[in-house]
Amino acid sequence: MASGPAPSSPAPEPSAIETDALVVGAGPVGLFQVFELGLLEIKAHVIDSLNAVGGQCVELYPDKPIYDIPGLSAASGLELAERLRQQAAPFAPTYHLGQEVTSLQRGHDGRLQVGTSQGLQFLARAVVIAAGVGAFKARRLAIDGLARFEGTQVDYRMGEPAHYAGHHVVIIGGDAPALEQALRLSSVDAARPASVTLIHRRARLDADAALLETFQARCAEGALRFVVGQVTGCEVTADRLTHVIVTDPEGHTQPLPVDALCVLLGRGPKLGPIADWGLARARKQLVVNTATFETDQPGIFAVGDVVTYPGKRKLIVCGFHEATLAAYGVSERLRPGEPTLLQYTTTSPRLHRLLGVSGKTGSVSA
Amino acid sequence: MASGPAPSSPAPEPSAIETDALVVGAGPVGLFQVFELGLLEIKAHVIDSLNAVGGQCVELYPDKPIYDIPGLSAASGLELAERLRQQAAPFAPTYHLGQEVTSLQRGHDGRLQVGTSQGLQFLARAVVIAAGVGAFKARRLAIDGLARFEGTQVDYRMGEPAHYAGHHVVIIGGDAPALEQALRLSSVDAARPASVTLIHRRARLDADAALLETFQARCAEGALRFVVGQVTGCEVTADRLTHVIVTDPEGHTQPLPVDALCVLLGRGPKLGPIADWGLARARKQLVVNTATFETDQPGIFAVGDVVTYPGKRKLIVCGFHEATLAAYGVSERLRPGEPTLLQYTTTSPRLHRLLGVSGKTGSVSA
Repeated sequence: MASGPAPSSPAPEPSAIETDALVVGAGPVGLFQVFELGLLEIKAHVIDSLNAVGGQCVELYPDKPIYDIPGLSAASGLELAERLRQQAAPFAPTYHLGQEVTSLQRGHDGRLQVGTSQGLQFLARAVVIAAGVGAFKARRLAIDGLARFEGTQVDYRMGEPAHYAGHHVVIIGGDAPALEQALRLSSVDAARPASVTLIHRRARLDADAALLETFQARCAEGALRFVVGQVTGCEVTADRLTHVIVTDPEGHTQPLPVDALCVLLGRGPKLGPIADWGLARARKQLVVNTATFETDQPGIFAVGDVVTYPGKRKLIVCGFHEATLAAYGVSERLRPGEPTLLQYTTTSPRLHRLLGVSGKTGSVSA
Repeated sequence: MASGPAPSSPAPEPSAIETDALVVGAGPVGLFQVFELGLLEIKAHVIDSLNAVGGQCVELYPDKPIYDIPGLSAASGLELAERLRQQAAPFAPTYHLGQEVTSLQRGHDGRLQVGTSQGLQFLARAVVIAAGVGAFKARRLAIDGLARFEGTQVDYRMGEPAHYAGHHVVIIGGDAPALEQALRLSSVDAARPASVTLIHRRARLDADAALLETFQARCAEGALRFVVGQVTGCEVTADRLTHVIVTDPEGHTQPLPVDALCVLLGRGPKLGPIADWGLARARKQLVVNTATFETDQPGIFAVGDVVTYPGKRKLIVCGFHEATLAAYGVSERLRPGEPTLLQYTTTSPRLHRLLGVSGKTGSVSA
């Protein structure tokens, strides 16, 4: 859609969820976006590709302290996410996790129709993209014919060992998590897999010495097998994946029997379909008006690491500001001709009511 | 100085404090400015008119919760200020409190020469104005000839009751703090004042019913006197203030004997001399480049409630962002031609060293 979301001719599905605002991304900035929208009495639904709120912070460094959130000298990614989720809780947002946005169209009434990978449909008066560096998704193996086995014989995370009893298991990956899973599977006593093979594109594995030593010992014992090479194809018989074809660094190929293929190549962020919505971009980021954080498409706003503007720094503290101004931008878009007045949470009885607080503490200063 | 800070001809005082950055204002935004400058290895001195850090937040609502600081569901002004002061502490800023900036000149070497009301002189390579709505100062009484008694017979805060023994005390003010001081003075047993008079411009006093009742009872007993009117002049004999002239609502005047005059008209913010520095302004606010938060004068930056730009909202969360970008702006001004790279406090060993932290927590995630 190089020319932006086109008006759709079919009427919206009757089952579409109607909302004032739809926030795409439940990272710290998306969570604070919900809070700021709430202060302006704008209800929000939130979509995120991960299964929990917190976004990149929680996905990449859940337990590592962040030191530059104003007023929080040190907070882990998990703690920050939880604090922000609680702060937004008075506004009762609805979170739709574990799914990405897949489609965006503008309806005849100007509302935005958004679809997700789990088949949800939204009709939103405003969309705020707080998608950070994109949806975190497991890195896929791009082999023709493999996709249709996803969820049956091909998986992007390991299941319980019992699931693999009697199976030829092939794990693709070369880092510590991949090695650990291979070792774990090769060590089960009852209901063992028929074989466990780790495939990595080069001989050097990315793990510490102790883990490598254990891994090598298990290979020497014949409990598992390490193959250097890349999966370049697969064999399918009677609608069943039977072999993967591995090409070694010298270019020789061999088929390896497989019942279960686990692709553990890490999880990378992808902007996904948002990149195809025809929104103005610069250096891959969305271009926004810094007064409102609206993109070049009316009603579509963007905040956080996904945006660019002169001076932009990819810092959470900047995303908080962007979400704040975007909330006012959304408010003025939803209530045209009605300027949104700023009220202070310290003194406004209206905001105290919305937040469900009294605005008073035990001690009152002189 | 309508044309901006002019180069000064005299050499800087030998006693001037040299600094990379001088932050004017120790409110939440000024404190976070110190932190963000610190992350970029820029040391700061800080000036504030109040005697404690925290600015407007602490001056106006020290104990009232603020609900819209990201990640802090409710923090009083005092708590927020203390958290931010502690967060900035690793960078060991020097605070110069209880004084306002009074002068600004640009030296021949391009550095900014800043003077304060307590006679300090600074030579700074960059100045960041985080002055909020201005310096909080007691509201003055504009009566000719009164100023020279300030600190002797005229005061803007009450001293200890013993200080007023045998004196005719006149208190100007009509709110609860003024009434409380009048009651307090009228109730001392030993070393009593000769008389206590409260003057307010109208009969209606701004206090709760209980306080008003007590006040009226004490007036009825003759322990203190309430006069409705405005102080319109004073009488001075032998270099001593002897009377204030009070004009009542009907226009009649009367002299009241006075040894000690306490003006309790509240404390109001004033931008003060910053307004005279020739910086570009719009609607009384300083105009800044939102990429760097530099004003139209090189090396002079501004952040927080004192600035304006399209979309500006006077919120602390926005000030934090502004201070962050201003720190990068200052860095690029101080190190020309050397782009300031963004590093993350979560992962950067350099930032961990600066902050004096290990960057690790007890538990490490898988």
